[in-house]
Amino acid sequence: MNSPLQTDLYQLTMAAAYWQAGKAEQESVFHLFFRRLPFHGGYAIAAGLEPALKWLEDFRFRAEELDYLASLRTRNDHPLFREDFLAYLADVRLELDIDAVPEGSAAFAHEPLLRVQGQILHAQLAETALLNLVNFQTLVATKAARICHAAAGGPVFEFGYRRAQGPDGGLGASRAAFIGGCEGTSNVLAGQQFGIPVRGTHAHSWVMSFDDEQEAFDRYAEAMPDNSTLLVDTYDTLDGVDKAIATARTLREQGHELSGIRLDSGDLAWLSQQARAKFDAAGFPGVKIVASNDLDEHLIESLRHQEAKIDVWGVGTNLVTAADQPALGGVYKLAALRRDDGSWQPRIKLSEQTAKSSIPGRLQVRRFVEGGKFIGDAIYDVDRTFGETTTIIDPADPIRTKEIPAGTEAVELLQPVMKGGRRTGPAESLETIRTRCQENLAALHTGILRLKNPHAYPAGLEEGLHEHREKILRELR
Amino acid sequence: MNSPLQTDLYQLTMAAAYWQAGKAEQESVFHLFFRRLPFHGGYAIAAGLEPALKWLEDFRFRAEELDYLASLRTRNDHPLFREDFLAYLADVRLELDIDAVPEGSAAFAHEPLLRVQGQILHAQLAETALLNLVNFQTLVATKAARICHAAAGGPVFEFGYRRAQGPDGGLGASRAAFIGGCEGTSNVLAGQQFGIPVRGTHAHSWVMSFDDEQEAFDRYAEAMPDNSTLLVDTYDTLDGVDKAIATARTLREQGHELSGIRLDSGDLAWLSQQARAKFDAAGFPGVKIVASNDLDEHLIESLRHQEAKIDVWGVGTNLVTAADQPALGGVYKLAALRRDDGSWQPRIKLSEQTAKSSIPGRLQVRRFVEGGKFIGDAIYDVDRTFGETTTIIDPADPIRTKEIPAGTEAVELLQPVMKGGRRTGPAESLETIRTRCQENLAALHTGILRLKNPHAYPAGLEEGLHEHREKILRELR
Repeated sequence: MNSPLQTDLYQLTMAAAYWQAGKAEQESVFHLFFRRLPFHGGYAIAAGLEPALKWLEDFRFRAEELDYLASLRTRNDHPLFREDFLAYLADVRLELDIDAVPEGSAAFAHEPLLRVQGQILHAQLAETALLNLVNFQTLVATKAARICHAAAGGPVFEFGYRRAQGPDGGLGASRAAFIGGCEGTSNVLAGQQFGIPVRGTHAHSWVMSFDDEQEAFDRYAEAMPDNSTLLVDTYDTLDGVDKAIATARTLREQGHELSGIRLDSGDLAWLSQQARAKFDAAGFPGVKIVASNDLDEHLIESLRHQEAKIDVWGVGTNLVTAADQPALGGVYKLAALRRDDGSWQPRIKLSEQTAKSSIPGRLQVRRFVEGGKFIGDAIYDVDRTFGETTTIIDPADPIRTKEIPAGTEAVELLQPVMKGGRRTGPAESLETIRTRCQENLAALHTGILRLKNPHAYPAGLEEGLHEHREKILRELR
Repeated sequence: MNSPLQTDLYQLTMAAAYWQAGKAEQESVFHLFFRRLPFHGGYAIAAGLEPALKWLEDFRFRAEELDYLASLRTRNDHPLFREDFLAYLADVRLELDIDAVPEGSAAFAHEPLLRVQGQILHAQLAETALLNLVNFQTLVATKAARICHAAAGGPVFEFGYRRAQGPDGGLGASRAAFIGGCEGTSNVLAGQQFGIPVRGTHAHSWVMSFDDEQEAFDRYAEAMPDNSTLLVDTYDTLDGVDKAIATARTLREQGHELSGIRLDSGDLAWLSQQARAKFDAAGFPGVKIVASNDLDEHLIESLRHQEAKIDVWGVGTNLVTAADQPALGGVYKLAALRRDDGSWQPRIKLSEQTAKSSIPGRLQVRRFVEGGKFIGDAIYDVDRTFGETTTIIDPADPIRTKEIPAGTEAVELLQPVMKGGRRTGPAESLETIRTRCQENLAALHTGILRLKNPHAYPAGLEEGLHEHREKILRELR
């Protein structure tokens, strides 16, 4: 259940301080973005917007939450929050304007995934939950896209709930994995809540609960005649394959077909070739071979290069925990404050490295398209003019630039999704989001999709914004 | 909210198959354990039992969950589950006996964290949720213990919600981090739900929302006079320290004391020394220096070796995601089935490596203690006799043995916590669990606590069980 207490304490103490300083209603713009693509990859897949919007909509302090806040004390035993501030909080709804990159879109470093505009107190109270939801969903959707790319069309199923970071870590991972391209999940709750197809085989314990492996297979097939994928490696894998063939024959005599077998240990390349040959020779070319066992995109790519005869990939731990980089590192930075005259004052956070300094202004991303392919993204300030031709400058390496000719087809990446705290339209279906992801991946140059040392997609600052930012940085130093 | 659908689909298809094969009520024993200590460390801290017991207690299928299961179809469009099976499920409660290692205890590879005994259908329906909850909590409690060990008594606060793997990934991590030794969390929901102390400072956005850093500090201190820790690195860190000193003077004039400052970037060793010197010279030796910025146990140890003047550690991403190993890899294996005569038949899962084969029998762990220190753990089968002296054999390396003399003090590590699905006692408080963790860590030789290349604690199989297992393995091959 969503709670306004899903936040860092400092958001609430800052809220109290904004309120006390008379600044609570100061209009502000924050951007949620990441600074580095995950997994040393060439792209990310934006995700997490829908749960974030739901959280924003649900936001309100209930009595028990205010009571809890009222119970907090300072180190010298004074109430941490003033009663009149808590009374103010009781009426707070987050009346924010949100522009966002649609879920399933390809996204790159420094691009705002969300632009949040509204009263600074509201924007701060939203920060932690937005980061939590968007960081993790984007991370796992990206990981799933990489794994599905490695599988090259062979279906990938997400089997990770038991190793996920808590119940909701598992549930969220199933959603994001489906967006990124997985065909389904083993997680039944994700099936119920999100309509994601659910799949499964059986465990070693099923086989071990019988005195005889053949009997275990036959009994399972009897109970699930149209849905049996037999796990063959409890004792000896190829011996298990022979027994699965015997079960397949029995099923066929009864008018059913064995769905598949699963390999969960050993040399998956060699065992899958042996198993495939055995099933083919026995007249069962339709039996699918499912592989699992700590798979990730690199192992899948290697198995395909070894011509493993694997039809379906079951991926768990490395997908749901994004094991090689378990956090995206997204941040949420103040970028502009509204002056009394209605104009916007850009704000910047300095850093010892220029690349880590934030990008000031109210930002939008223009994505240029040529022949159906994405050719570059320009981050620009909506309150500044934009020339006919566009030069894109990489903020991490300003020597790297990309020229976009005038008249090139372009789309604005951030779309309005919430105005004054209300959605501008209905929630998107997961199928719509998943399809967008497939279309976006198809619009990227294949070099960008490469797992290792990918081609760098040209994404950066529009030249005018770059120069404006450099000027502000020089002045501040 | 707990749901029986927090499981893998295959648990439900196996349940259907056990039921149809007339084996649903077959009494069985499963163990939940891990095979390798996380983080290349010398120990783990068991956690996750309380949420697991809650999940088991809450288990029942509601109408909407049964409706969802009834809606699932096979690939040739038959119902996946029979109606009479779903009617059976509607009445299922998990009447399991659970013996468990108390939360906060030190635990080692191959030792059952939980022993689950009961009808095989019940034990399977519990598997996925138990693994999900115990794996993640144990992982983060262990990580927290390592980080707190590195901090050597300097308080560690968990600040990771924004980078956690989903809302509940964050909430669960806060709980486990507190068990492992953290003093508190930034996560307000964890404060409300678990009573964990909440702490915080303020963000860069607070400073950036003012035209002047000094004004930002003064206004924050005004709103939080007894609870101000000022973030000094928005522009220039040492300049920020000077301004924080000015604020500290103002506060003192008003009868308050500045709590501290936070350093979030740059050379934390050097900056903390400079900041400490400045505050001491200005007459503020009591102002605490808080450090954050992608810290983990190795960075903290290094900063301490460099004589950084850091009083309080704020640790986020690397703690809550257990970044260097984001999954524990715990498994749940069938180990015994009850015969009709009431005796127990051991069960084993073979593996190409003997070490990865499971351990048969109904297992308990005897922990030997000498002079208040733990000296060795023997995993044994409660249905087999145990000699006067004990020889402990490492299953991963049977040459490594440890002899325990007769009469050595010992405790039984697994305690009964649930009988027939009912708790045997009230839930433990988090404080009790956290204290047990501190006591357990104090009972380990310091070499075992070492972060890198720790001393190996003698934990393994009691000799009789080892020989029995070898015999079964030889027979099966």
